[in-house]
Amino acid sequence: MKYSQAFLPTLREVPQDAVIASHRLMFRAGLLRKLANGLFAYLPLGLRSFRKIENIIREEMTAIGALELKPSVVVPAELWKESGRWDSIGESMLRVKNRLDNEFVVSPTAEEVFTSIVRDELSSYRQLPLALYQINTKFRDEVRPRYGVMRGREFTMKDAYSWHADDKSLDDTYQAFGRAYRKIFKRCGLSVIPVKADSGAMGGSGSEEFMVESDVGDNTLILCKSCDYAANVEKASCKPDFTAQNPEGAKAAASSVPAYEKIDTPNAKTIEELCAFLKTEPQKFIKTLIYRALNVELDLSSAPGCAKLERKKPSPGAPLVYAESFFAVIIRGDLDVNEIKLAAVLKASEVSLASDADVTRFTNAPVGFAGPAGLTSLPIVSDLSVTAMNDAFTGALEKDKHYKHVAYGRDFEAWLTEDLRTVKAGDKCSICGGDLYEKMGNELGHIFKLGFKYTSSMNVSFLDENGKSQMPTMGCYGIGVDRTLASVIEEHHDEGGIIWPVTVAPFHAVIVPIKFDGAAKDAACKLYADLQAQGIEVLLDDRNERPGVKFNDADLTGIPYRIVIGDKGLAASPAQVEVKKRSEKDNFMMELDKAAALLAEKIKEELKSFDV
Amino acid sequence: MKYSQAFLPTLREVPQDAVIASHRLMFRAGLLRKLANGLFAYLPLGLRSFRKIENIIREEMTAIGALELKPSVVVPAELWKESGRWDSIGESMLRVKNRLDNEFVVSPTAEEVFTSIVRDELSSYRQLPLALYQINTKFRDEVRPRYGVMRGREFTMKDAYSWHADDKSLDDTYQAFGRAYRKIFKRCGLSVIPVKADSGAMGGSGSEEFMVESDVGDNTLILCKSCDYAANVEKASCKPDFTAQNPEGAKAAASSVPAYEKIDTPNAKTIEELCAFLKTEPQKFIKTLIYRALNVELDLSSAPGCAKLERKKPSPGAPLVYAESFFAVIIRGDLDVNEIKLAAVLKASEVSLASDADVTRFTNAPVGFAGPAGLTSLPIVSDLSVTAMNDAFTGALEKDKHYKHVAYGRDFEAWLTEDLRTVKAGDKCSICGGDLYEKMGNELGHIFKLGFKYTSSMNVSFLDENGKSQMPTMGCYGIGVDRTLASVIEEHHDEGGIIWPVTVAPFHAVIVPIKFDGAAKDAACKLYADLQAQGIEVLLDDRNERPGVKFNDADLTGIPYRIVIGDKGLAASPAQVEVKKRSEKDNFMMELDKAAALLAEKIKEELKSFDV
Repeated sequence: MKYSQAFLPTLREVPQDAVIASHRLMFRAGLLRKLANGLFAYLPLGLRSFRKIENIIREEMTAIGALELKPSVVVPAELWKESGRWDSIGESMLRVKNRLDNEFVVSPTAEEVFTSIVRDELSSYRQLPLALYQINTKFRDEVRPRYGVMRGREFTMKDAYSWHADDKSLDDTYQAFGRAYRKIFKRCGLSVIPVKADSGAMGGSGSEEFMVESDVGDNTLILCKSCDYAANVEKASCKPDFTAQNPEGAKAAASSVPAYEKIDTPNAKTIEELCAFLKTEPQKFIKTLIYRALNVELDLSSAPGCAKLERKKPSPGAPLVYAESFFAVIIRGDLDVNEIKLAAVLKASEVSLASDADVTRFTNAPVGFAGPAGLTSLPIVSDLSVTAMNDAFTGALEKDKHYKHVAYGRDFEAWLTEDLRTVKAGDKCSICGGDLYEKMGNELGHIFKLGFKYTSSMNVSFLDENGKSQMPTMGCYGIGVDRTLASVIEEHHDEGGIIWPVTVAPFHAVIVPIKFDGAAKDAACKLYADLQAQGIEVLLDDRNERPGVKFNDADLTGIPYRIVIGDKGLAASPAQVEVKKRSEKDNFMMELDKAAALLAEKIKEELKSFDV
Repeated sequence: MKYSQAFLPTLREVPQDAVIASHRLMFRAGLLRKLANGLFAYLPLGLRSFRKIENIIREEMTAIGALELKPSVVVPAELWKESGRWDSIGESMLRVKNRLDNEFVVSPTAEEVFTSIVRDELSSYRQLPLALYQINTKFRDEVRPRYGVMRGREFTMKDAYSWHADDKSLDDTYQAFGRAYRKIFKRCGLSVIPVKADSGAMGGSGSEEFMVESDVGDNTLILCKSCDYAANVEKASCKPDFTAQNPEGAKAAASSVPAYEKIDTPNAKTIEELCAFLKTEPQKFIKTLIYRALNVELDLSSAPGCAKLERKKPSPGAPLVYAESFFAVIIRGDLDVNEIKLAAVLKASEVSLASDADVTRFTNAPVGFAGPAGLTSLPIVSDLSVTAMNDAFTGALEKDKHYKHVAYGRDFEAWLTEDLRTVKAGDKCSICGGDLYEKMGNELGHIFKLGFKYTSSMNVSFLDENGKSQMPTMGCYGIGVDRTLASVIEEHHDEGGIIWPVTVAPFHAVIVPIKFDGAAKDAACKLYADLQAQGIEVLLDDRNERPGVKFNDADLTGIPYRIVIGDKGLAASPAQVEVKKRSEKDNFMMELDKAAALLAEKIKEELKSFDV
């Protein structure tokens, strides 16, 4: 393509709201323009790279037998009501009513749509496994869209879904997607950190996130310095830094500890204040937090204080849940409760600290004096750390009073004991004992074993080999196309601009004649035609601009190979051109007549080097 | 691809709401499924053909230098308010508010978005002409979606827009698009009727529609039996069947006609009743209709009865308009007023017959007695047919009274005289005088000279060669991708199913082993691999089904070449396979060992035959 016909408006200024490199460079290099907050238009150069990423994804999906569909972007609300997500997904979902008052959703994801299609077509186990995907427009109504396409409102996602007769088949497909994702990111030139979300409790890995490091990432990753352990902090676990892990242990150890007794703690409510007052350390405290949980799926019929709670379906397809319930969550005083782990343990759609009024209602005391001993008004959910505590301080359910000598198992019973702590840098790796550290990351892809969530709520079934009706199990697998593109730029750029990996570069090479005139013009046009004939994608800078402007734009747009044609090189015998790789510092001369063949070979080799 | 892995669910039953062939066949052949009224999902087979049409469009767009962009589908309302279309487009536009109360539009078209992008980048005449396009999701909230994807709510459109320094440049690009559209439809195997919307008044063709014949078409086409004249009835004109075409002619001819006089016409209001009562024919009447028009752009400051009307901008970017105004439209008694022509003449957003109360208010008489003579309360807009009438009957603006001997130009003055008649079958061609006839058609594409509508309302400018600020003129060019696909099936099918043109077929060939077992299986797999190696897209029917089922599905899905492998053919020496073209009745035998090479050659030749 000739530059003059390419609609390639580069900018010298940086958009004010662009704080990260990819956002800045996508605007400056003429890949993207903003239509509104979180809504963008890809310009031709950006779209070329975007399509290459789409194609890489498509090829790897085809390679593992996934089939492409194209459902509408605007979909009927009915499907979301069937699954129950019409109620459970908040305002991030863009809901629309049309002129006939029908309700629609601008798809944020498509489990429902794909499941509904498969439900109608699936009859026999012979049709399984089945993996379907789309690469299509999605919308999530981010409250604060930022970082360009990294966190936009509208975006393109590859979302795949699979259905299986059994767990083994699901695992095979899940592993195949995992391998495909590694290939996709490698072919895009990206270093991803695959983060296994092995929470221990799930008995194996049912979810893996593909992260790239980013200072402005949405996610905190916990990584091990000594082994390849990597987890999202949402699910990270660590090596226990306590011994007892069962009530009997703590109870036994507590036999030598005096009975618990009330002490005065005037004006001391926080653990810090109490440590100062009692001259002790946070590790000696059992911190008690009252949580409010929404839509808990766990059976609470035998839980303390829950006898009167009603279990209902919020919508026909949804599971039975308790709309609102409360829990006392206890954890060692130096640790923090991980609310995502807590929500997962309770199978709740949301958990948050209870209001002061609710705390008082359940503990009969002002905020700051909750404790597990004598607390019967609600279920106690304990972190594993507490199982080792047999001589602890706790709140005494009374203003300005605490207990000392409280022992887990002896002085109170936890209704549920699970790993609930937030893992931090400095904790020890649960696999090798090495030091854990933190990184910020952005999620580019996610593979996940869904199980029966949708096939159950949406009534999907098939006949097995024995003619018996069965419910298929499901997996889902997403990749953000825009984010992947932006992440390539994050990883591959310098002060001068983008440094595209050749696989996703909008063009493989750019020809820059010092002046587009005379012999240089003729040589440039011939080389342009010859490279195109070899299947190389070339941009020819035919503009009447100063060489400095052309060089700057070539650097900014990041095209892997730059070929400069000047009078001096042409005057040499044989005539020479100057070739420079965007990713390297030095340039080298190449014989003009051999340049097309040599460059085409070089570029094809480089393209091949990304194949895995 | 192997059939067993293709997710290709064919149906024996026809969906109840499918009344046209393409709708029926897209469901039965497993190309499409319905998600809701007017919302669909393409299944893998349908998507393959869909992508081929997209690619044909993309190639022809690239060939004429148009560049692809990808703006978001959900776009900010602000842009539509700037152009004024936020107010002027009705409820067919899907408007959404997000959680922050920002207003958005799910794009029905994208003049505003593209113009806003170009506005920010355009500075010099050197950047023009510029043609940009997208192939993207659109939404129009059809009240009664039907005929499958032929009239859906969500659809994919290729919409292109161009900007020019002058009319000559616009015309060049407009012509290039016209040629590209002819190629696109030819390559899809479609017979389109290019319908020039030459209304005469516009002084040349500023709009061309690409229609396919369809019994359920949205459009009535007027075609000439003798020449290639073709027009949408909305704009069709015909040879005048009267002589005088100017007031002077009628006035002169009227000099021998007595002065007009009032006559009694008790209980006769309709032209029919009057003809019976007066023993005359409709051609002798001047029919007078009172119309209400919304948002008229025409300057009415000097029009009768309009002195008090106020001219305002409904929104900042919109042109000055009269919100509501009324007109007396006159036409020869045997003809009908074409309201689309009328709206175009008045530059109104909408015209409709006035209410009875409004008729009485303007004519001082009940409905049925309006007439131009003596009518001064509103402007008279006359069809050309009236210019030849110098001895006509008209209403007398009084109950049960009419005038006779009324002459155009002598007894009243028309404020505006234009071609307003609805052309019908039987009228004569304005070009060759041949008989005109009617057909129903569906619009697949439309090219249109927009002029300054958007560049003016949205303030787009560039500096010309002399450094002077100028406003660019615009064109726009659309193709409905889904409709094109459905139209291919409408044109190419029989009772057994689809008969794909090879260019848009989901696969070029299907291999049907009578039994997928033993020697037939081996031969089928080898032929499958050999054809794929030659670049041929092959479906291998590896199912354990009866041959009849496989043959029916091969016919239904319409794959151009079917290769049957059976024991009998394999037993021959040399071994034979049976080849049948879907479009032909007879089959023929082909040597197995030569089949891959011969078929690949045949298919490639056939593909080439569509190139234009």
